[in-house]
Amino acid sequence: MPKISARGLRMPESPIRKLVPFAENAKKRGTEVIHLNIGQPDIKTPEIALKAIRNFEPNIVAYSHSAGAQSYREGLAKYYQKVGIAVDHTNILVTTGGSEAILIALNSIMDEGDEIIIPEPFYANYNGFLTSAGITVKPITSVIESGFALPSISEFEKLISPSTKAILICNPGNPTGYLYTQEELNSLKEIVLKHDLFLIADEVYREFIYDGEKHISILEMEELDQNTILIDSVSKRYSMCGARVGCIVSKNRELIDTGLKFAQARLSPPTLGQVACEAALNTPDTYFTEVVEEYMNRRNVLIEGLNKIDGIICPKPTGAFYCIAQLPVDDTDKFAQWLLEEFSWNNKTVMVAPAQGFYSTPDLGKQQIRIAYVLNTADLKNAIRVIDEALKIYPGKQA
Amino acid sequence: MPKISARGLRMPESPIRKLVPFAENAKKRGTEVIHLNIGQPDIKTPEIALKAIRNFEPNIVAYSHSAGAQSYREGLAKYYQKVGIAVDHTNILVTTGGSEAILIALNSIMDEGDEIIIPEPFYANYNGFLTSAGITVKPITSVIESGFALPSISEFEKLISPSTKAILICNPGNPTGYLYTQEELNSLKEIVLKHDLFLIADEVYREFIYDGEKHISILEMEELDQNTILIDSVSKRYSMCGARVGCIVSKNRELIDTGLKFAQARLSPPTLGQVACEAALNTPDTYFTEVVEEYMNRRNVLIEGLNKIDGIICPKPTGAFYCIAQLPVDDTDKFAQWLLEEFSWNNKTVMVAPAQGFYSTPDLGKQQIRIAYVLNTADLKNAIRVIDEALKIYPGKQA
Repeated sequence: MPKISARGLRMPESPIRKLVPFAENAKKRGTEVIHLNIGQPDIKTPEIALKAIRNFEPNIVAYSHSAGAQSYREGLAKYYQKVGIAVDHTNILVTTGGSEAILIALNSIMDEGDEIIIPEPFYANYNGFLTSAGITVKPITSVIESGFALPSISEFEKLISPSTKAILICNPGNPTGYLYTQEELNSLKEIVLKHDLFLIADEVYREFIYDGEKHISILEMEELDQNTILIDSVSKRYSMCGARVGCIVSKNRELIDTGLKFAQARLSPPTLGQVACEAALNTPDTYFTEVVEEYMNRRNVLIEGLNKIDGIICPKPTGAFYCIAQLPVDDTDKFAQWLLEEFSWNNKTVMVAPAQGFYSTPDLGKQQIRIAYVLNTADLKNAIRVIDEALKIYPGKQA
Repeated sequence: MPKISARGLRMPESPIRKLVPFAENAKKRGTEVIHLNIGQPDIKTPEIALKAIRNFEPNIVAYSHSAGAQSYREGLAKYYQKVGIAVDHTNILVTTGGSEAILIALNSIMDEGDEIIIPEPFYANYNGFLTSAGITVKPITSVIESGFALPSISEFEKLISPSTKAILICNPGNPTGYLYTQEELNSLKEIVLKHDLFLIADEVYREFIYDGEKHISILEMEELDQNTILIDSVSKRYSMCGARVGCIVSKNRELIDTGLKFAQARLSPPTLGQVACEAALNTPDTYFTEVVEEYMNRRNVLIEGLNKIDGIICPKPTGAFYCIAQLPVDDTDKFAQWLLEEFSWNNKTVMVAPAQGFYSTPDLGKQQIRIAYVLNTADLKNAIRVIDEALKIYPGKQA
């Protein structure tokens, strides 16, 4: 029998995959499982995008240009100009979701054995793209005590080797919800210019910023045109995860030209998704105002509720719709499984994502969980109560 | 300025990319360019699929399962059973087009430096996936004189090394239109069993078989369950190239489980495309009867017309909608450019794909072109006349 590849064997599993059968069993027993683990928002897709799908007129679902439909790229360029990013359609490569944007960007600038520095905890799926591309992660640990702020320049410099090609950030962050400050971005600028690195920023949560804070894109920064690669996606912006449309934006022409060669090999990003996206560019501002207000309410309910529980530490995020909470337990892998297998309160339990999968350094995050606050506040309140009650009796509780 | 990766530099350009500006210039001069170079069919998408898009009801365009919507996979399994392939939905991984199916299959079974044997000429975009995955192609040349039949077992065995992991075929073939016989498939079976290799077959043109011939899938073959990986796509079957929906089908559980890890990293194949595909499964048989008849007419017009021209050799393909023609010219790269830059007949010219890009062995295919017969017969007749007239005056004509 022929063998699977070494890279196939190395590919990581999703951090929550092993919990799925336990959740299914809990549901079979009649227990309601409140999902705090997922990133699929319950927010509606803008009506204008749904209408565009329902009004699809062509009688052939044809390929688009490999870089994406030009009309969509032109519309996207206007969107970026509006948020302060001075690009035109030739700086944009439309991709199959943010996922493919990351994969093409990594393949365009890194070879097998090259190293990338990523502040951890980071989005677990980066590991999949990095593994399949043969790239080594050098994690730099940000800590819950400082709310996951960027580590200092000197910590970065300790990790830089001749194989280092890039730094990857997610801003605002999944799973931390952390929003980088101008000062932190300036530090990154200093490092990448000094060491001639690419700076990749995953900014897919750009619209979800709270408390009047302002998001700063790496493409707004001066002197960084050749170094910066923006990763974007409509999945969360318009609650259109299934459209599978994202993009790479860069002022570095060589990067865009190289990325296009990878894009040509796979011919075209999804045409139907692009139709929805092009229409979604005209989503009224009120949509975002309402969505941001809704998420901010959810965040407030969640963070206040969690921090009231004895022994839980949960910094208040200013962006995205995730937070990391530290729990007074032995191991959140065990706790998450116990919640599904052994516990219920009022016939409810919760499914959480143990945070170890978001760390690259072994054994970090063992007391942490990631929560996606993509549920209504009533569900969130129930979830908090479940966690509170669970911690009262969990056998692996720690002081 | 940070550097592009070595793999980015190695990524091949599309064989026709450098012709595009010449085609644009010809159009600017007012010359009609008949495109024989493209694989985008002019056939309409089945009405039932278009209706499903227009009737899209959910108010969130959400992720599907990473392996594809279960209802779609179940429907697909029935489709495969109908064409003689005994699989269920757990043998299927829905992908973003046939492109991603190939990429995931290659990554699941091959590591950087591994070797794959592919009969040439082959679909040029395979080179992109192989380059990005760091895999080495060992081409085995099939020749126009035998109509691109499979080379003998002994030729294959000359290429097998300890690094050989797989043989990849396209059946029926792009760019040759060649349909493998039972005998040829039996030869492949013998080789892969003897040397413990995977056999990957790209069967995306399964429905396009002419002259009463029958397509045989590698998944129909006995004793090969652990060795065979089927690559499929709806792009050509339902003329839905832009849906970006394909799949991997295999009875090898380890392969499907490994592929799923790559699929989970990118979360979900396109949801809207899958909605169209699930509906398209109920396309009436008359749709295919009509489409196959149309392509067979086009093929007949094209092949007869070309073979009437002095010095052209063009074997009659029995599948897909491509053919390779050998022309009495010095170099089809030059000829293709000359057609666009210098020539017109009756204010028309043609754009063809020089065949060198479909060969991996240097200098092969220099006198060949690939033609996609995805145009109506009137256009094809004009294209044949253009080529005939052009060859009368082309400066690089050879006997």
